[in-house]
Amino acid sequence: MNCEPSHPGPTPLPASARLEAQLGFILEIDKVKSVLRQTLLTDESRRENDAEHSWHLALMAITLQEYAPAGLDIHRAVTMLLIHDLVEIDCGDTFCYDEAGMVGKHEREAAAADRIFGLLPADSGGPLRELWDEFEERRTPESRFANALDRLQPMLHNCATAGGAWREHGVTADRVLRRNRIIGAGAPELWAYARAMIVDAVARGLLDPGPDYERELAAG
Amino acid sequence: MNCEPSHPGPTPLPASARLEAQLGFILEIDKVKSVLRQTLLTDESRRENDAEHSWHLALMAITLQEYAPAGLDIHRAVTMLLIHDLVEIDCGDTFCYDEAGMVGKHEREAAAADRIFGLLPADSGGPLRELWDEFEERRTPESRFANALDRLQPMLHNCATAGGAWREHGVTADRVLRRNRIIGAGAPELWAYARAMIVDAVARGLLDPGPDYERELAAG
Repeated sequence: MNCEPSHPGPTPLPASARLEAQLGFILEIDKVKSVLRQTLLTDESRRENDAEHSWHLALMAITLQEYAPAGLDIHRAVTMLLIHDLVEIDCGDTFCYDEAGMVGKHEREAAAADRIFGLLPADSGGPLRELWDEFEERRTPESRFANALDRLQPMLHNCATAGGAWREHGVTADRVLRRNRIIGAGAPELWAYARAMIVDAVARGLLDPGPDYERELAAG
Repeated sequence: MNCEPSHPGPTPLPASARLEAQLGFILEIDKVKSVLRQTLLTDESRRENDAEHSWHLALMAITLQEYAPAGLDIHRAVTMLLIHDLVEIDCGDTFCYDEAGMVGKHEREAAAADRIFGLLPADSGGPLRELWDEFEERRTPESRFANALDRLQPMLHNCATAGGAWREHGVTADRVLRRNRIIGAGAPELWAYARAMIVDAVARGLLDPGPDYERELAAG
């Protein structure tokens, strides 16, 4: 009896080449520490970078997991958050209210994901590449919760820094409501809180309401 | 029959106070992004901070998990790495070769852990506080693997930056071998690799051997 598979997979890397590939990935991802976002640190000393943002989101997932959909695999959400911004090594950060910059963003980032996760041996890079797709597609409870936190964290920072990036870029409350409503799909209680934060920021004059404020507020 | 516990625990926080406490913790830990380590980024542009270091370690745990002891809970190690440096919000980073700075370090950090994890509701802050102890005690496979990565990452950066913090502080190879040998307790193959990196750094003149180099090398 022949127990060999008729179509064997690719020959595995020898141990040393495998570890070299893994360490090559680990050194490569160091670059994400130099990708700056629009969000300020809460002490307003500087802009936040993607690595520390990802760290913050991972710990938010752990400490806010009770607001995630029941039965969700929290570790899957944590891993997703740790890797979700690696593509910005090649593509840079696009400010989420920059509508021109958003055009073609997904295609550019998918090519970056192929390159970066492709540095790892296929048996570990492949699943991480799929996890990046899952985050982008927002179809699973894990990816909806992860995306909710990715939207909530800059809102917390903007509110803690007298309007922060919202004020700097003249973003209005109606646009904040429209863009971040998807928090409700991953964590309804956190969206209720975030919505109240927006209303409060408008009341405190940190955020201009914008022309569609009442309508967006009524939309939930 | 009385099914109530005779000594009920503390009254749970109402929902809104609970979320406020959780968000208070999340804003507090933003401060760890401003705690600088001695390690340079691989492009030598600046020193690394604790938040991005913790992110890097968490992704190292995920991508290098095959070198961890069999049966280890990798998610436990990841969570441990995400929180292990939060105490430095109060205590700052102590360079690991600063022997005077290491005196009393554990007691100072344990008090910081009480304060910081104490910001969370007890049912989530308590387990994280225990996880911090577990990391410090290095008795479990998870904590040994996490500590191994915490030692390995600065070595990778120092080798990628022509000696980096080692050269800046005049640290010799014998001390590097002595301090980092515990990598072998959590990830023997990674220690074999790290040891070869040290030998190579000495051969390339990035690291002075120091008086005890041959003896430390022979010690494994």
